[in-house]
Amino acid sequence: MKRDFLKIEGLSQNELLSLLDAAEANLPIAEQKQPRKSLLDGRVVANLFFEDSTRTRCSFETAVHRLGGQVFTLTSAGSSTSKGEGLIDTALNVEAMGVGAIVIRTIISGGPAMVAKRVRIPVINAGDGRHEHPTQGLLDLVTLRESLGNLAGKRIGIVGDIANSRVAHSALQGLTILGAHVILIGPPTLVNSNQSKVTKLNDHVSITHDLDSIIEQLDAIMLLRIQTERGANTGISDDYRTIYGLTQERAKRLQPHAIVLHPGPMNRGIEIDDTVADEHGGIRILRQVTHGVAARMAVLENLLGSSKV
Amino acid sequence: MKRDFLKIEGLSQNELLSLLDAAEANLPIAEQKQPRKSLLDGRVVANLFFEDSTRTRCSFETAVHRLGGQVFTLTSAGSSTSKGEGLIDTALNVEAMGVGAIVIRTIISGGPAMVAKRVRIPVINAGDGRHEHPTQGLLDLVTLRESLGNLAGKRIGIVGDIANSRVAHSALQGLTILGAHVILIGPPTLVNSNQSKVTKLNDHVSITHDLDSIIEQLDAIMLLRIQTERGANTGISDDYRTIYGLTQERAKRLQPHAIVLHPGPMNRGIEIDDTVADEHGGIRILRQVTHGVAARMAVLENLLGSSKV
Amino acid sequence: MKRDFLKIEGLSQNELLSLLDAAEANLPIAEQKQPRKSLLDGRVVANLFFEDSTRTRCSFETAVHRLGGQVFTLTSAGSSTSKGEGLIDTALNVEAMGVGAIVIRTIISGGPAMVAKRVRIPVINAGDGRHEHPTQGLLDLVTLRESLGNLAGKRIGIVGDIANSRVAHSALQGLTILGAHVILIGPPTLVNSNQSKVTKLNDHVSITHDLDSIIEQLDAIMLLRIQTERGANTGISDDYRTIYGLTQERAKRLQPHAIVLHPGPMNRGIEIDDTVADEHGGIRILRQVTHGVAARMAVLENLLGSSKV
Repeated sequence: MKRDFLKIEGLSQNELLSLLDAAEANLPIAEQKQPRKSLLDGRVVANLFFEDSTRTRCSFETAVHRLGGQVFTLTSAGSSTSKGEGLIDTALNVEAMGVGAIVIRTIISGGPAMVAKRVRIPVINAGDGRHEHPTQGLLDLVTLRESLGNLAGKRIGIVGDIANSRVAHSALQGLTILGAHVILIGPPTLVNSNQSKVTKLNDHVSITHDLDSIIEQLDAIMLLRIQTERGANTGISDDYRTIYGLTQERAKRLQPHAIVLHPGPMNRGIEIDDTVADEHGGIRILRQVTHGVAARMAVLENLLGSSKV
Repeated sequence: MKRDFLKIEGLSQNELLSLLDAAEANLPIAEQKQPRKSLLDGRVVANLFFEDSTRTRCSFETAVHRLGGQVFTLTSAGSSTSKGEGLIDTALNVEAMGVGAIVIRTIISGGPAMVAKRVRIPVINAGDGRHEHPTQGLLDLVTLRESLGNLAGKRIGIVGDIANSRVAHSALQGLTILGAHVILIGPPTLVNSNQSKVTKLNDHVSITHDLDSIIEQLDAIMLLRIQTERGANTGISDDYRTIYGLTQERAKRLQPHAIVLHPGPMNRGIEIDDTVADEHGGIRILRQVTHGVAARMAVLENLLGSSKV
Repeated sequence: MKRDFLKIEGLSQNELLSLLDAAEANLPIAEQKQPRKSLLDGRVVANLFFEDSTRTRCSFETAVHRLGGQVFTLTSAGSSTSKGEGLIDTALNVEAMGVGAIVIRTIISGGPAMVAKRVRIPVINAGDGRHEHPTQGLLDLVTLRESLGNLAGKRIGIVGDIANSRVAHSALQGLTILGAHVILIGPPTLVNSNQSKVTKLNDHVSITHDLDSIIEQLDAIMLLRIQTERGANTGISDDYRTIYGLTQERAKRLQPHAIVLHPGPMNRGIEIDDTVADEHGGIRILRQVTHGVAARMAVLENLLGSSKV
């Protein structure tokens, strides 16, 4: 039976650890220290990027090339995409062309899952609406584990517009599976919490609107990108940097071993100050990018490794 | 001497059958049941898609990859394209880069033939204005033959804006060469015919404006896409579905063995109803897509198979 | 230590000759008379084309494919490009994806050099603002040398908006290094010169506003493209063709052995007349295109030839 990679949510701890291990094993290839593999020699992967993301697209292209395969890219699903119909017809067409897998990025939450039910080839979610961005989740976890080791019990802060962030959702799912403690940090529009500084949602997740009150407790801080393009009145004001930006002052209060992640591209001067981005020893932002290629290779291998041809 | 693939018209029956056989032989590769070939290893094919068509572009890319080659795509011929000059200068440039073949899609009827006279490498027509779309013609014929066997004497209806459809023109040429009987079906603006229900143009081609009067006689029905983008006042009104759409009621009147083709992308609810597209047993629309890759491989092999390097 | 290819200026004569020899040696591959090389097998090169140039992009893609590698293309560096920050963040990201080299085209003069200081992989300048277009310089030199032999002492005219042309700047640097005599020809806005017909700038470079006064002395004439898109009030009037265009009358006054170059795409009827472009025996414009692939291969080999993996 064919499998897909649609979300981090619902993976067992063993499944998730196995993907992280596979991603780590691919690192020397992603870093060009070892030659490419040949799993996808002669095969084609379809990139359906109905929502633009140059970096994620290039990362997937590179991952496919590192496995010996070819890629083609579609950027429009036609006029009926808003109803989800164009998405499915396009995916069925692409499947009929004989591609090995479909990578989909779309503003439609659940769009990749809709497609996965209709096609017989593996579907990989490269970001769907406000739902998940599971390969981003993997690369975040690989990056955290590389610096912090076993993530069980570690305190990871995620800062920004949590409610609208699929990056946050995938990270939260993955961190919870691995036993980390996640602190969601953002403006009050994020969630209705009570008056206490930190609201405990369950054993693994807390919420706070006050970054300064907990920054010294964090083992890692994951900054989200302000997604004005994913829109809506998110309540994020021009004061964002003042309250939630990783300024030089705040960065000094991080523990010495704490690391800083950002999914990129950074809005310098908003989520993060220039000097922090360029000089702070805990910055792992480019490391995340390298892990992205290794993680996407691991997902493709996991889904296509045992298939014929 | 170099050869091109510019149109179905003028092919001998043997030439055409030979291409269909080659396309059929490529099916297991197009379906990923057999590994790719290596004919184009190290070679580059140029896709000059001056008129947008994501699906045809991806189909050609996949066909080239299945033969081991690489593709680059140009989407603009510069400002003088309307005079045809930019088209030729662009093609000459691309030839000078050392590509193995040029695939051209353009609104200029006869554009690929103009280019073919000026370059020394094979030129493949991927659709030119209202003239032909010969690889679409091939894939239609392969699909019809797969379900209906020998096409001689079979009754094939083509429904839509025949006058402006290069898809119809290529299919009509190919079906005539193979001895099928073609019924062109569309609104009166299609052609001036007399008052009889069906006008016989010659031994192989008839015309009617009344789909309902002949639908039960058809072995296959080929639906054309309403091409509003290829414009002009085509006389196609909002009543198109009522008169020419393959509604569920009409589909029930098709013979049990009859099949349904559409070049895609479908305008659901206009040329074809949702339930017919998704549930009717005679639908071969995705099968056409798979045959498209196999047919384009066959054309590339036919033109480049004996060339050096 | 990693090396880059940012400009012709500053190359030693030996370095330049060595690149030209390597480009010439690649000609049979660029012309498809010999199979591709495998230097870049399994490697990916990033094309960062922030300024559009379809032909240069396709030439680099073909060069990479001829060396066995893969390419991905980015066309936007995000919103902060004007400050150069987006350019560097994008390049750092692409480097982190594990590409073997970065090819950059940008309106920012010096942009590729800025990037080269920040990344550890080779950077190739594919045209930066009004500065240089060094691979174009190489292909121009290869083309001149093929027809004229040793360029020392040869008289090469460059015609057009010299002040704004990076093509002219790279050619001027290269020709000077090889000992040719360059005559820069263009409207008075080009440079403040005195009243004499030809102003000698140094032993190797002269300036004139009067093409007709020196056309019979030239061994080669390099026409520049009118770059309205690179803008500014360049003082180039509608009378350009009358004064500086290579009309049929002017072309007849060229020496029999003299050759004509143009970086393309030509503005027919402005820089060059149709009949000259299509029929004059000295035209080398398509030959330049073929040399472009060979030269870009040579640069990639020079920078990546000794690297690991």
